[in-house]
Amino acid sequence: MTDIARASSLLTIDVDAVVANWRRVANLIAPAEAAAVVKADCYGLGVAQIAPVLSAAGCRSFFVATLDEGIQLRRILPGGVIYVLGGPVGGGEADFAAHGLIPVLNSLAQITGWATFAKAGSAAPAAALHLDTGMNRLGLEEAELERLAARPDVLASVRPILVMSHLACADDDTSPKNMEQLATFRRLSGQLPAMPRSLSASGGIFLGRDFRFDMARPGAALYGLNPIPGRPNPMAQVVRLQGKILQVRDVDSPMTVGYGASHRVVRRGKIATVAVGYADGWFRSLGNRGHGVIGGFKVPLVGRVSMDLTTFDVTDVPAPLIHPGALIDLIGPDITVDEVAAEAGTIGYEVLTALGRRHHRRWLTRTTEGKPA
Amino acid sequence: MTDIARASSLLTIDVDAVVANWRRVANLIAPAEAAAVVKADCYGLGVAQIAPVLSAAGCRSFFVATLDEGIQLRRILPGGVIYVLGGPVGGGEADFAAHGLIPVLNSLAQITGWATFAKAGSAAPAAALHLDTGMNRLGLEEAELERLAARPDVLASVRPILVMSHLACADDDTSPKNMEQLATFRRLSGQLPAMPRSLSASGGIFLGRDFRFDMARPGAALYGLNPIPGRPNPMAQVVRLQGKILQVRDVDSPMTVGYGASHRVVRRGKIATVAVGYADGWFRSLGNRGHGVIGGFKVPLVGRVSMDLTTFDVTDVPAPLIHPGALIDLIGPDITVDEVAAEAGTIGYEVLTALGRRHHRRWLTRTTEGKPA
Repeated sequence: MTDIARASSLLTIDVDAVVANWRRVANLIAPAEAAAVVKADCYGLGVAQIAPVLSAAGCRSFFVATLDEGIQLRRILPGGVIYVLGGPVGGGEADFAAHGLIPVLNSLAQITGWATFAKAGSAAPAAALHLDTGMNRLGLEEAELERLAARPDVLASVRPILVMSHLACADDDTSPKNMEQLATFRRLSGQLPAMPRSLSASGGIFLGRDFRFDMARPGAALYGLNPIPGRPNPMAQVVRLQGKILQVRDVDSPMTVGYGASHRVVRRGKIATVAVGYADGWFRSLGNRGHGVIGGFKVPLVGRVSMDLTTFDVTDVPAPLIHPGALIDLIGPDITVDEVAAEAGTIGYEVLTALGRRHHRRWLTRTTEGKPA
Repeated sequence: MTDIARASSLLTIDVDAVVANWRRVANLIAPAEAAAVVKADCYGLGVAQIAPVLSAAGCRSFFVATLDEGIQLRRILPGGVIYVLGGPVGGGEADFAAHGLIPVLNSLAQITGWATFAKAGSAAPAAALHLDTGMNRLGLEEAELERLAARPDVLASVRPILVMSHLACADDDTSPKNMEQLATFRRLSGQLPAMPRSLSASGGIFLGRDFRFDMARPGAALYGLNPIPGRPNPMAQVVRLQGKILQVRDVDSPMTVGYGASHRVVRRGKIATVAVGYADGWFRSLGNRGHGVIGGFKVPLVGRVSMDLTTFDVTDVPAPLIHPGALIDLIGPDITVDEVAAEAGTIGYEVLTALGRRHHRRWLTRTTEGKPA
């Protein structure tokens, strides 16, 4: 039997759609550079499969979160420009240098640590500086920046090639915080020597030309999430998740379904049990709220999501479509990641990064072989 | 630099505690057999590291969810008795036989499929029968059971060695559903030839002797979750999750923290940014609700959880404890999995299965070498 026939669930990742999304962003913001944020395993979709195709399409700069991710990506992209957002912590500068990783330096302590390391004669790569403009999460505070600006020797040792910041409310184009952060970024970056600047990720790109500077750092938009919530999604959908029906059962009132007997059957009908559960990243918060789609029919998720199983009310679907072995779309042409996220009470980013390891994965591309896991 | 020094987060799994929990259950229910539910990679904790130690401690029977998991576990435990809860779907009987996996047959269709396969002369393993007693998720319906009981030839071909069911409300000892399911299980299993019976998982074991039959199937209790919510947890804690502080920043009113500016600073204080986010399974629903512990001090999670980062208010912690590189307990001696789950609006099972791949993992045992990932 084939791998697909054996699978309990199938996750199909359209790598060409990722590339199309990157090209759309790159064209939109040119002449600014479009980098690619590939942290968290490309938001759960497979950095080993996606990053090389983005690179082949012309993407030059890549952002990851941690040193581990940087080392992994260096193996995948021997020639790529790789930024590591967390920077070195508790030592680690030598690891950055050994793998040619550009640290994003988030504090005066990281900057002076890097300067000391660079001055010690190692062939340290260049670095990026991260200014906090209102997230209060990572990045140089204004007082630290003033102290840094007074130390041209430190700056010279660090050799910064990019100064960046990050928007807190870019998904809400009515938030006054966006213009505040833009003004702060201009003011603070003006205290540094001239160098390329970057402020925006996916959302910021669509806030307008002023937010694009010399480089933007799209992530979510590449993977098909809507960067402009409330308006039609300009990005191509990347993900399809299909769960296999294990069993179809006849139910009738007054039966209950699942843990906690949380769903009460009110009419004669059919329940399909699908081999996907919260251990697959199909959130438990979807219980009695989510839905799937089969043959164009929307099927409500009833009862609680359990670890390995989810139950759907398929009463209104023509019987020939519903049988053990048939596939229900959990994410697909008729149900987007953003919709699933709304039903789960979260955002599409978390739906993607939670996608589990038990799904049989296939990556679709015209430019490379699709490789099932 | 060591692997641990490089880590953004550390996940420590006390395998000896898993074994102690299994022994406690085994002693409690003897002479009934204590199996071990090791599906979903031992609830996210590492089946390759845990199953062999349970086997060495005397556990004979293991339950997984899918064929893939069964094949994986067969490689780990060449001699173990392995049940696969989902049974064969759309073919697959030959895979079960090839790997010596015992299918849990959940429907008349699966039973007749298995009987046909077994009769064809293959050396089919024995099978288990799953009766639905009120979950309406998987399992033989009563009408199907009657048809099966009338077919002794089919039953003889299947060679069932276990009949099982599953409780919907075992975590609530006041639910009338427990006694209903117990009565239904007795009545339905009585229509089959005499064979070993199993009704309870972790919760059911603690509902009393009547629920234990010949075998119980603990999972959650082995991994330290409380099988009797609302009463003191009789199980040993298994998991510790520590996140590394990347940066400590001074904040003051009227600053905001994180995405959506959802946390407003009301007094002069300190925020620690930790390198764990929802891509690590640290749920976004913990935003402005969760907490961590450092040096015995409880530190509130402030702002939203982002993909790779979480921010804590560490104002009240002595300064020497709070520095880049220091570790905050996200799960640990002073903060249980069940507590994290309550703050995230879910159950401990989902917290465990969501634990991410970026955590550096170590398994502690006295009987085998601890192996960092």
